[in-house]
Amino acid sequence: MSPDAVRRFDASQLHEQIVAVLRAWGMPGEPADATATVMVETDLSGIDSHGVSMLMLYEELRAGNRLKLDAVPEVVRDAPAFAVVDGGAGLGHPAGLHAVELAIHKASVCGIGAVAVGNSHHLGALGHYVRKAAQRGLVALMTTTTRTPVVAASGGTTPILGTNPIAFAAPRAGGGELVVDMSTSVVAMNKVKAYALKGQDLPSGWVFDRQGRPVTDAALAYSLLTTREGTLGPLGGAGPETGGHKGFGLGLMVQVLSAAFSGAALPLDDADSDNLGHFVLVIDPTGAGESGATARYVDDLLGLLVRDEPDVVLPGSPEAVARADRGRNGIPIPESLLEHLRGICDRAGTDMILTPLG
Amino acid sequence: MSPDAVRRFDASQLHEQIVAVLRAWGMPGEPADATATVMVETDLSGIDSHGVSMLMLYEELRAGNRLKLDAVPEVVRDAPAFAVVDGGAGLGHPAGLHAVELAIHKASVCGIGAVAVGNSHHLGALGHYVRKAAQRGLVALMTTTTRTPVVAASGGTTPILGTNPIAFAAPRAGGGELVVDMSTSVVAMNKVKAYALKGQDLPSGWVFDRQGRPVTDAALAYSLLTTREGTLGPLGGAGPETGGHKGFGLGLMVQVLSAAFSGAALPLDDADSDNLGHFVLVIDPTGAGESGATARYVDDLLGLLVRDEPDVVLPGSPEAVARADRGRNGIPIPESLLEHLRGICDRAGTDMILTPLG
Repeated sequence: MSPDAVRRFDASQLHEQIVAVLRAWGMPGEPADATATVMVETDLSGIDSHGVSMLMLYEELRAGNRLKLDAVPEVVRDAPAFAVVDGGAGLGHPAGLHAVELAIHKASVCGIGAVAVGNSHHLGALGHYVRKAAQRGLVALMTTTTRTPVVAASGGTTPILGTNPIAFAAPRAGGGELVVDMSTSVVAMNKVKAYALKGQDLPSGWVFDRQGRPVTDAALAYSLLTTREGTLGPLGGAGPETGGHKGFGLGLMVQVLSAAFSGAALPLDDADSDNLGHFVLVIDPTGAGESGATARYVDDLLGLLVRDEPDVVLPGSPEAVARADRGRNGIPIPESLLEHLRGICDRAGTDMILTPLG
Repeated sequence: MSPDAVRRFDASQLHEQIVAVLRAWGMPGEPADATATVMVETDLSGIDSHGVSMLMLYEELRAGNRLKLDAVPEVVRDAPAFAVVDGGAGLGHPAGLHAVELAIHKASVCGIGAVAVGNSHHLGALGHYVRKAAQRGLVALMTTTTRTPVVAASGGTTPILGTNPIAFAAPRAGGGELVVDMSTSVVAMNKVKAYALKGQDLPSGWVFDRQGRPVTDAALAYSLLTTREGTLGPLGGAGPETGGHKGFGLGLMVQVLSAAFSGAALPLDDADSDNLGHFVLVIDPTGAGESGATARYVDDLLGLLVRDEPDVVLPGSPEAVARADRGRNGIPIPESLLEHLRGICDRAGTDMILTPLG
């Protein structure tokens, strides 16, 4: 089987496989099940970089004793509408889910609720979390810091901030949600990696060397980024003419929201680099005595956007298309990743149960 | 005096002049004073497009009976940490200040507070409001809708969203604040106007005609934007390769936060186009039992950014430089604007008291 060969796998079998690995690693049943649900949903949504493929990193962190699989997220500061949670150096998924549920509870009492999480790890794609809140009629905003410093300050060439994503979701009357989920860098790291794997040149303006010169060789660019010898442009590009200072400002906002309240790591603090921070805000429009006007507004707004425009792509719609396809036809996994998963199962002492569909 | 001639004016005299005009228009003393303070602070910060020059638009709206100078913002829905305010079709400044104070109060009780405002008007630069909160040790996020539809959806060419700005501020230990204040379009409208006034060509990628072709003639571009015959790119540019879909997603987020809770206008609803919406979120880190760690984090973070980088420009620092200069040397006003102000005073039946410094 060529490493590029891609076969499809059933979502529920993939879920079972992930649970088996996480449990073998020492994660209790409930958080293992919740984590697997987030990971499989992420693969179903077509965000392959943040789903089951992340098991490789998690295995590495666990092996280095930097990831506590049996961590229990704990509220360390609490106000009626705001809390700070210590993730206990565990995987970000249970901590993120805990934060969203706590923010939803606070919003149901106070109209809004926010939770900052520190001492956490990677939590997958933020879109998953805010979409779950929107499916319950709520509006949600979420941010997280990320591990690798890649974005420089405006006017600088030192990689400092991560790709620091923002996600936002709101319910749509009649069903469905508006979901925005984006890094505050010009592209996510995995986009550069994907170009490298395909041997394609990068567009100018994505990656720069430490002298600020554009790098278009994708393999070189990815290697510069992973060794801190290059930078990824912020959203808006490198200079102020195209708004690069704005993308950098957004990245700073994400850093402060996600890390400042919860004592998560500062950038470049290598001794503390596993200490990621997340932030979630939930607004319950009905908590202020309104019945459905917010969801109707969102539906009317999205309707306007596509009214006379057949080519408009709404945020979240590529993910919805992927969910429809993959829910029906299975999740595509390349042989190269399957081979990694076999190794992970083997080292964890659990069976590899994945069998391709069709 | 040539219309381009620029002389400097004392900030307190400008404040007195604005108060006199607003009072002559029928605004009570307290909101007139508060509004003038925001407008003068905005001019002091170098954001000339959003300060005293806005009196021309306000006069036009008042003349059309679309602006109620004696409006009193009113809380129409209230939860412990969230409220919705009706601006009463008044100027946005008193409504915005009211919203920030209410959000601060709610945050002092609940840890966070948020307020959505509808039925409001232009409120100046958002940076002013969030900076005031940060000066009190709080973290603040603010958004607003804007009047003129200029940004198209990803893949579309119809101008729909406004420049929909976002502002964020956080306190810095040892004094000062981090302030991010940005439109979610590639540039603000006034940047295009400034290029037109100087007869400079625009960079490609700022403005597009209805066929999606770049327009670099600045005067033509500005005229296309004001007549809805052109579009302003979102932050990130026109296409997905440079992240234009992300800037558009941010603009949508701003639209929903600012307008969906408060019943502010949908885009393209011309009968309702004066009905702007704002949203402000305030987080009180001390409300969750923390003492100063957030401000120390922000200070450490900003320190890191400039540590080895002499050319880094921090968000908010151009405005701080302008405040230092203009506080000392006065606010520059071109003769062309002075001439407009003379006419406004004349029509309002109040004296023009502005006299240049030096």
